[in-house]
Amino acid sequence: MKIEAVDLFYLAMPEVLDIGDGSQDALLVRVQAGGEEGWGECEASPLPSIASFVTPMSHSACKPIAASVLGQTLQDIDDICRIGNLVRANSLDLLQSAHMLSGIDIALWDLLGKRLNEPVWKLLGYPHPFPKLPYASMLFGESPQATLAKGQAARRAGYRAAKFGWGPIGLGTVAEDADHFVAAREGLGPDGILLIDTGTVWHDDVEKAAPRLPALHACRATWLEEPFDSGALTAYRALAQRSGPLKLAAGEGTHSFYMAQHLIDYADIGYVQIDAGRIGGISVARQVAAYAQARGVTYVNHTFTSHLALSASLQPYAGLEQDLLCEYPVELQPLAVAVTENSIGLDPDGMVHAPAAPGLGMRVNHAALQPFLVDVEIRVGGQLLYRTPTDRLRPL
Amino acid sequence: MKIEAVDLFYLAMPEVLDIGDGSQDALLVRVQAGGEEGWGECEASPLPSIASFVTPMSHSACKPIAASVLGQTLQDIDDICRIGNLVRANSLDLLQSAHMLSGIDIALWDLLGKRLNEPVWKLLGYPHPFPKLPYASMLFGESPQATLAKGQAARRAGYRAAKFGWGPIGLGTVAEDADHFVAAREGLGPDGILLIDTGTVWHDDVEKAAPRLPALHACRATWLEEPFDSGALTAYRALAQRSGPLKLAAGEGTHSFYMAQHLIDYADIGYVQIDAGRIGGISVARQVAAYAQARGVTYVNHTFTSHLALSASLQPYAGLEQDLLCEYPVELQPLAVAVTENSIGLDPDGMVHAPAAPGLGMRVNHAALQPFLVDVEIRVGGQLLYRTPTDRLRPL
Repeated sequence: MKIEAVDLFYLAMPEVLDIGDGSQDALLVRVQAGGEEGWGECEASPLPSIASFVTPMSHSACKPIAASVLGQTLQDIDDICRIGNLVRANSLDLLQSAHMLSGIDIALWDLLGKRLNEPVWKLLGYPHPFPKLPYASMLFGESPQATLAKGQAARRAGYRAAKFGWGPIGLGTVAEDADHFVAAREGLGPDGILLIDTGTVWHDDVEKAAPRLPALHACRATWLEEPFDSGALTAYRALAQRSGPLKLAAGEGTHSFYMAQHLIDYADIGYVQIDAGRIGGISVARQVAAYAQARGVTYVNHTFTSHLALSASLQPYAGLEQDLLCEYPVELQPLAVAVTENSIGLDPDGMVHAPAAPGLGMRVNHAALQPFLVDVEIRVGGQLLYRTPTDRLRPL
Repeated sequence: MKIEAVDLFYLAMPEVLDIGDGSQDALLVRVQAGGEEGWGECEASPLPSIASFVTPMSHSACKPIAASVLGQTLQDIDDICRIGNLVRANSLDLLQSAHMLSGIDIALWDLLGKRLNEPVWKLLGYPHPFPKLPYASMLFGESPQATLAKGQAARRAGYRAAKFGWGPIGLGTVAEDADHFVAAREGLGPDGILLIDTGTVWHDDVEKAAPRLPALHACRATWLEEPFDSGALTAYRALAQRSGPLKLAAGEGTHSFYMAQHLIDYADIGYVQIDAGRIGGISVARQVAAYAQARGVTYVNHTFTSHLALSASLQPYAGLEQDLLCEYPVELQPLAVAVTENSIGLDPDGMVHAPAAPGLGMRVNHAALQPFLVDVEIRVGGQLLYRTPTDRLRPL
């Protein structure tokens, strides 16, 4: 079959706030081929991504993404890999292309899975998926007391793992940070898996991060996430050599296999965090999962949007037993909830499972998404290059 | 003074061909502050870059570039650095932002230079600029005879250095490639500086590149450019260890300081090639030039568009004597020629100089650019976010 259509849908909350919540808008991708449709989601700024799909060619290595996707043959998984390589070659100089490709690649896997009546993880070569332990992701409180309360709430909600991030950490004194770490541990309880995320607050300054290590050891944090900018590989390595049992985690911003590889090879991280909606899709994420396994690094998804994105992010490492943890979005905006009719819930043991249904196993909720659809129109040289598809997300 | 306006102009040749010529379109940036204007050029796909400037906010780390630039104070060079850091923080998850920022940063330096009546290289801390030896950049011929003729033509035109790239290299046998290398050397003459560019043809396969080394040694090539994908750091290092006097060159695609740093730290390159129109502007390029100097790596510009871009690309290393070579675009499309009224020519010794006039020292040719201006209109949610400025590039 041939790829007949790729449609892009920009969705947004009525009001987008200046807060660190990435579920306030979304770019959904619908691919059609052979009477089947597949869905994907980009973890990306929607408008520049749409522009990267429709833009006029600049030169032979700066073509619109559409040029490498529309009309392509899609018969088996090698075709998905081939299409990804085509995009990377033909849009080499179009920076936004990795983010746009991500949603397309995810939709291609979904479509092929439905066509072949297999879940994506099976197409990826995994005999069966292993249950993953979800961690609740939340911000530190403004005070240690508030952090304590948040930890207690996560524990009451049944989470066996929780991540505390951003907030005041790194902005005050070492002692103030230590109070938060102690509070997080106390709230979560002695057995919970505690993860700490400092959101690149120290950029590349090892001497600002290192004084926090004793408190991180004392609270038995499993990982310290993004102490530095993701490109600051030498700073990561230097800190890793002083971190003892505490592992470093990074990778959510990577937008190529190589970038993830550099973190694994040169930054001495213990956990590589991959967003399938950014790195180039399920194909590239799967490649990173295999590389991480070979290097003794633990793979974990990065997801803070819909359960369509969550299913996509679970597939690349669904069959890897040793990669136990899973980022599980818990405070979604109504838009992100509306993306799918079904959701990926916790089982009685508090674990999550990659869906067993064909493709990604998720059903897009066309009706619920209607109020969030944003009309977009792009004209270049008097020609209409993009307009929100007239079916407005209705089932085909 | 405050930044009052940032205007973007998409320019293109009437027909853009599917060839490796990046001068077929352009995105010019005009910044206004305190009654002065500055100009910059992005080496980027115009439409997604424009979209990155005007797009609605997705969340606190995915804002439009405009949000971090318009209304900012611009008094001294620290302000330019501060604005760049703001963009990198506020648009962290907007992939296209580095390309858009590049043109803005360049325009800010131009504006500040005009305001302070100093050339940009002086603002960068260089007492005076050193002459650079331009190399003519061309494609290999389809046959060794054609390559020979191209080398002879470059020599007749007075070039003391030339780069041959792409074409059939790497696609045929080792012996066929060797014939081209011999022809290039013969055409250029025994004293010319010969540079070879293989355009990432071997991706990350060291064993495909290594058999070409004897012929590259025999023709006394100064560098081998991009044998591999720019992220394939381990492949670069492995080849560098077998390359003897031949140095590796890479870096044109880097879009952050860190990416260039990784090539210097982990790939053992001898030359780092930076496009100020991609990496984040003159500010980031200058940072790379200093880092390269400290690590014994030679800095060289990457430029294949207008002389506005050429001036911008010369500034970051204008005052570094040991970084002698300069990529000099020789086969520009009429659009790229039309960008500036003046140009950066070769002196009687065949050398080029960063302009001595204030700012970038280039005068944008408003009239000549008129026929190339492309009308763009972007509407989101019924609201007009961007339309080609109504002054249509006319002097303010």
